[in-house]
Amino acid sequence: MQLDFQKSDGLVTAVIQDHRSGRVLMVGFMNEDAFRKTVDSGFATFYSRSRHKLWVKGETSGHRLVVKEIATDCDQDALLVRVEAQGPGVCHNGYQSCFYRRLDNGLWVESEPRAYDPDAVYGSKP
Amino acid sequence: MQLDFQKSDGLVTAVIQDHRSGRVLMVGFMNEDAFRKTVDSGFATFYSRSRHKLWVKGETSGHRLVVKEIATDCDQDALLVRVEAQGPGVCHNGYQSCFYRRLDNGLWVESEPRAYDPDAVYGSKP
Repeated sequence: MQLDFQKSDGLVTAVIQDHRSGRVLMVGFMNEDAFRKTVDSGFATFYSRSRHKLWVKGETSGHRLVVKEIATDCDQDALLVRVEAQGPGVCHNGYQSCFYRRLDNGLWVESEPRAYDPDAVYGSKP
Repeated sequence: MQLDFQKSDGLVTAVIQDHRSGRVLMVGFMNEDAFRKTVDSGFATFYSRSRHKLWVKGETSGHRLVVKEIATDCDQDALLVRVEAQGPGVCHNGYQSCFYRRLDNGLWVESEPRAYDPDAVYGSKP
């Protein structure tokens, strides 16, 4: 049984979930190489649609995602990757989860404080 | 602050999570109309890439998804929709979650029993 990489230009959606808390941390995309590298290395690896290349999550920050379990959905075009997140947060903006804003009466509002200082990890923005 | 519908041909990824258990139930896509209808109606509504039209999840089965909270990610191109699922399962194959298969030594294996009989809900397959 193979994953369906054809439906989205060679990519499947990968939902990243904390294996202990159940919190959804981020959503990325994997091509077949990224999926294979994720399975073989045990660290979540994605395909960047903007940079057109593979990236190991945490290669800059050190906040890598240790794979605990991988599931696929009925259509085989999405993955649910349960991970142990190394470091305080997966979001490059400094939050534990990329989903740090929720809809509140028609406005997106930040719903949690930053977990770390992104400038200290990634360097100051220009 | 607007969602970014441009990165994926007018669509954003929508991760559907049970608001109580934290289980990820399915992944779908929303265009701007589907997102607006989800917010206005309170029931998760998607855009079908194969049928090229909106569909209210559960319109056939009755297994609708009552929206409890909507979050967006740092790039504003993905949604996390926390729901109360009406009915025993969201997967049209009869499972509680579409993610009912996990990777086990290189093979995808079913990791849970069916929650309902899909033929009884959707009718027999031809």
